[in-house]
Amino acid sequence: MAHRIPVGLVGVTGYTGIELARLLACHGGMELVRATSRSEAGKTLRDLFPSLSGFPIGELTISLPDPDDLAAACELVFLAVPHGTAMDMAAALVERGVKVVDLSADFRLHDAEVYAQWYGLEHRHPELLPEAVFGLPEFYADRVRTAQLVANPGCYPTSAILGLAPALRAGLVETDGIVIDSKSGTTGSGRKASVGSLFCEVSDTFRAYNLGRHRHTPEIEQELGAVCGQAGMTVSFNTHLLPINRGILTTAYARLQKTVSPQEAHLVYSEMYQNSPWVRVLPLGSLPETRFVRGTMFCDIGIVVDPRTNRLIVVSVIDNLCRGASGQALANANLMLGLAVDEGLKLAPLVP
Amino acid sequence: MAHRIPVGLVGVTGYTGIELARLLACHGGMELVRATSRSEAGKTLRDLFPSLSGFPIGELTISLPDPDDLAAACELVFLAVPHGTAMDMAAALVERGVKVVDLSADFRLHDAEVYAQWYGLEHRHPELLPEAVFGLPEFYADRVRTAQLVANPGCYPTSAILGLAPALRAGLVETDGIVIDSKSGTTGSGRKASVGSLFCEVSDTFRAYNLGRHRHTPEIEQELGAVCGQAGMTVSFNTHLLPINRGILTTAYARLQKTVSPQEAHLVYSEMYQNSPWVRVLPLGSLPETRFVRGTMFCDIGIVVDPRTNRLIVVSVIDNLCRGASGQALANANLMLGLAVDEGLKLAPLVP
Amino acid sequence: MAHRIPVGLVGVTGYTGIELARLLACHGGMELVRATSRSEAGKTLRDLFPSLSGFPIGELTISLPDPDDLAAACELVFLAVPHGTAMDMAAALVERGVKVVDLSADFRLHDAEVYAQWYGLEHRHPELLPEAVFGLPEFYADRVRTAQLVANPGCYPTSAILGLAPALRAGLVETDGIVIDSKSGTTGSGRKASVGSLFCEVSDTFRAYNLGRHRHTPEIEQELGAVCGQAGMTVSFNTHLLPINRGILTTAYARLQKTVSPQEAHLVYSEMYQNSPWVRVLPLGSLPETRFVRGTMFCDIGIVVDPRTNRLIVVSVIDNLCRGASGQALANANLMLGLAVDEGLKLAPLVP
Amino acid sequence: MAHRIPVGLVGVTGYTGIELARLLACHGGMELVRATSRSEAGKTLRDLFPSLSGFPIGELTISLPDPDDLAAACELVFLAVPHGTAMDMAAALVERGVKVVDLSADFRLHDAEVYAQWYGLEHRHPELLPEAVFGLPEFYADRVRTAQLVANPGCYPTSAILGLAPALRAGLVETDGIVIDSKSGTTGSGRKASVGSLFCEVSDTFRAYNLGRHRHTPEIEQELGAVCGQAGMTVSFNTHLLPINRGILTTAYARLQKTVSPQEAHLVYSEMYQNSPWVRVLPLGSLPETRFVRGTMFCDIGIVVDPRTNRLIVVSVIDNLCRGASGQALANANLMLGLAVDEGLKLAPLVP
Repeated sequence: MAHRIPVGLVGVTGYTGIELARLLACHGGMELVRATSRSEAGKTLRDLFPSLSGFPIGELTISLPDPDDLAAACELVFLAVPHGTAMDMAAALVERGVKVVDLSADFRLHDAEVYAQWYGLEHRHPELLPEAVFGLPEFYADRVRTAQLVANPGCYPTSAILGLAPALRAGLVETDGIVIDSKSGTTGSGRKASVGSLFCEVSDTFRAYNLGRHRHTPEIEQELGAVCGQAGMTVSFNTHLLPINRGILTTAYARLQKTVSPQEAHLVYSEMYQNSPWVRVLPLGSLPETRFVRGTMFCDIGIVVDPRTNRLIVVSVIDNLCRGASGQALANANLMLGLAVDEGLKLAPLVP
Repeated sequence: MAHRIPVGLVGVTGYTGIELARLLACHGGMELVRATSRSEAGKTLRDLFPSLSGFPIGELTISLPDPDDLAAACELVFLAVPHGTAMDMAAALVERGVKVVDLSADFRLHDAEVYAQWYGLEHRHPELLPEAVFGLPEFYADRVRTAQLVANPGCYPTSAILGLAPALRAGLVETDGIVIDSKSGTTGSGRKASVGSLFCEVSDTFRAYNLGRHRHTPEIEQELGAVCGQAGMTVSFNTHLLPINRGILTTAYARLQKTVSPQEAHLVYSEMYQNSPWVRVLPLGSLPETRFVRGTMFCDIGIVVDPRTNRLIVVSVIDNLCRGASGQALANANLMLGLAVDEGLKLAPLVP
Repeated sequence: MAHRIPVGLVGVTGYTGIELARLLACHGGMELVRATSRSEAGKTLRDLFPSLSGFPIGELTISLPDPDDLAAACELVFLAVPHGTAMDMAAALVERGVKVVDLSADFRLHDAEVYAQWYGLEHRHPELLPEAVFGLPEFYADRVRTAQLVANPGCYPTSAILGLAPALRAGLVETDGIVIDSKSGTTGSGRKASVGSLFCEVSDTFRAYNLGRHRHTPEIEQELGAVCGQAGMTVSFNTHLLPINRGILTTAYARLQKTVSPQEAHLVYSEMYQNSPWVRVLPLGSLPETRFVRGTMFCDIGIVVDPRTNRLIVVSVIDNLCRGASGQALANANLMLGLAVDEGLKLAPLVP
Repeated sequence: MAHRIPVGLVGVTGYTGIELARLLACHGGMELVRATSRSEAGKTLRDLFPSLSGFPIGELTISLPDPDDLAAACELVFLAVPHGTAMDMAAALVERGVKVVDLSADFRLHDAEVYAQWYGLEHRHPELLPEAVFGLPEFYADRVRTAQLVANPGCYPTSAILGLAPALRAGLVETDGIVIDSKSGTTGSGRKASVGSLFCEVSDTFRAYNLGRHRHTPEIEQELGAVCGQAGMTVSFNTHLLPINRGILTTAYARLQKTVSPQEAHLVYSEMYQNSPWVRVLPLGSLPETRFVRGTMFCDIGIVVDPRTNRLIVVSVIDNLCRGASGQALANANLMLGLAVDEGLKLAPLVP
């Protein structure tokens, strides 16, 4: 294999860490040379994830996170650690000239006050917010290419923004009164030991959580507000936990601004994403399912015009771990390192 | 065991049939003396459902559906056959003086034209519609007690009506613009062989279906319209398929009509259901889960007041097979036969 | 409700505790007056398990475990705490004249040395072993009736012993070379927070564990050895983790001692369990499934005679939480308190 | 993309068809130019499998199966149709000079009488049996390279043969008395509409089936017999249905022929598979899980020496759809077409 660009991963033990390792195991342009974890340092990746046995990446020994070491070894580092923790590491790496893709929420919101309000935490590096690029490739690929710090979008926001942006940009729907009802697989809850995430507490059941106060709300409002040029836009964003591993399905409800036929609405969507191969606008009459995007970067979108209630209903699905986290991070890294955006991501969904 | 009232079940092979058989297996006041199926006649119930081995009900031989035979043998008959089929059998039995609980949609809508419009079928017995009682015990127990024909509510409507009625009756929310986002377990799709309901097509995935045109819509509109005295009310009702066996969770969104505190809203709900032991209004801050009502008649309701978006969000859960179908049918039959409404239904949920 | 006998439950937060609370919620002869937990004392049962809202038992406040308090309040106490912990509490309660059903392994093995060898722990109350009765109602109901201390059988052993005993007692199979391949639902792993039991680590996967060294092995050997009068009998007992909540299926393989027809083998099984209504020997050609016993005391057994390989194959299923733990404990308590063995346990399986 | 070799797929609608399409969607050396189905002809692949939208393969229109058309268009054809149907198509294609990989059982057994006995069907093309190669790459890669007709191994046999062959070849275990207890995900039951495979009949339950008479038995006996040079070898092979989509776990029990340490046994396995990168022999103390091979060609093997019962226990897992069917078929096709065996198969498992 030709020379590959050395990259690092801070926080390898969670589901986003595993997923990134899976994708990097077969990547032709990047080589994972550092993977860190405070709790698992000293083990190899295949000790932790037997799925990686037999791949060169599986032999990598997990190390402690050290900015100097990472900066010496890597051109780019992925941060897969919780918000609040990521910001300091990001700052340390940026200072050392390393490129950073942060999978946490720390640099997604442009406004440090909004961050403080929703995350209950003062931002310790607000000076980096202006230069951080929101890494949604369909919208910001050009800026990502030259960024040193990319804030990887949240999983729910990725589905909601891609689903609603065309309608808002085209003025099909009113900007107020939007309801976003999202349902996520359980990998979204992370890999920490907790009773609420046990198999016997999640399987064969379904629940809502964080209604009206999920932290992904301001991220959605920021980006959709930018799309329709309306700062201060609010949406009702609400989340549920699915007994599946991967996948988010978002059902969004918006009042039509004017009479529109299903065909017109469909055209708006098709045109907006005609150069975005990862966004698949389904034919009218079809609705998406999470399984059809499993393990990939696809965002499948189905739209329904309901004249009875004067509403546009948009259903969008993604794989929360791949498109909603690690795959998108890899796409951003590809752009930042001058590679094709889909390098290592040309995968067909695993069905079933 | 003392004398029990003889009852019959037309259509025993589906999930609602199985569930009714489960409940009747241990019922002290009714005895199942007829269970019919065109495809399985001649077998015993335990041949079909090994779970019923060892119960007297398991020895019952399945027969062909015959109104004369049913009328001769039974005081009351449950119809667990598809809409369109049920109406003729109901009429035949009513004519013969038998009490009927119809689990299909055939007698739920008061207006035969609305029925024709949503079900694509002319009603062949509109003369029975005025006397059919919508069998939601919390609302219509008195009328059910004296009814000869009860239309057992749909599963989705049961969750939506119980969830929204208090807010609408008290005028907390606007009557237009309501969005109802419902998610149902797969027993709701029935027990017929179909590729779309195979394990490998449902597990580890999630999908929306019938957006804006689910047939339970007019039933919800009829009943909520009655609650708030507004004929012609419309709601946006939308459905999703969960990879679980039992359970419906409905998330309903309504705009607040006036400023209301969470405590005030909670009081409205608690008071409305203070004499309805099957409706459990959860403490503020708690949200319901389908597992906590599994196998029972409970409807658990959680409410959230979201001042940011000026919305009341109501989450209601039921077991779609028990409260949403067979258990509710049994409660109605209890009332019609002069038994305690909860006879045979005093069950604690199976968790996990 | 008539006077009910006051009972206590030490260790209410695990799955066996929840299950016992579910069964006691509707029990006509016992009243739960104490439920203890070191971590959750002060809460009510319904705080912990919203499923119990609306039941009188849900209002019970969890207390700290105190032998004097338990002895003053209860005639009988269930111990649902880990092995090693249970033995001291059992001894304290027995000393105070309270009847005890211990759901742990502490008093199942007659031989303290075998206990020490498999559990890595010296038994601190070997003096109680001779009087402890192994609480398998089909075998030891008479002794249980007069016991003060009952050792509730393990979940796996219940399925294995009921499945193999008839063949061994009748001399159909050789006593050496028996292979027992068992598969259990995940409630068997308990309710403690651990990464290995997370939904995303258990769903859509399957694994073996503890091959050749599961602690339930000596319990099976002790009881099967007693059945065939052969001390020191060994079996190869091996376990797997199923992505389901409840249920154990055990497939047991034994070499036929002599030529036997399927009908003869079936007769041996039917006769042995003809007075044991909870053991359902399936017709030849049928094999059991875990769902058909869900939530109940049933043990369903299917047998296959394989002349090609000269083997008897026995498949037995139980609900590991109900028959394999709390339901069986309740049956034992019923016997110890002079109630009908099936009081509170006349339940039809929840299918699906 | 460079010129790719044109191939065809007869029977595209089942799970093995979907899986092969998934793998071919990203294959650099083959191009799918024909996909046939009697029931779905006229649709595109993406109509059938929305997961393939956006891939060139998704635009392929499904045609009716016609040997002349297939022979004119394809160098190699995969047959993913039921046994009994496959043999005629295979013969017609072989006659026309096309290479064939048959995923059915029709050419796996060398002996037409054994086929007739287990499949209840006279073989209509016994003349092809001598030249058909059993396509297990670890054993027969050289013969596959020059074969015109490859019989793709069954899913269960793949796991059982790879798991037991080293021990048998090295004489570690006795050849009689072997018990193979296998558990398969539900894709193994196929994609036809049937009540027994519905989500609500499979999820949250577990069952055994076809004990002692599964049709994969003679295939296992043929291949293991060849390994240890013992014609007429018998094994007790028994199967169970797992509520998961993909994956087989086989637990095999064999009596040790002589005293052997775990380290010695492990060495036997490691050496046999040292040049077989798809077979991963786990370190002693580790046991495999189906999730760690999901979507790939890996066969993970864990071994346990149990001196108490004088047994070797081998646990082997594969993905039944990929390694157990379509992936293995693709590996065989790679060999037959002169490509690298792992072309298009260098995938990291999707976890979770």
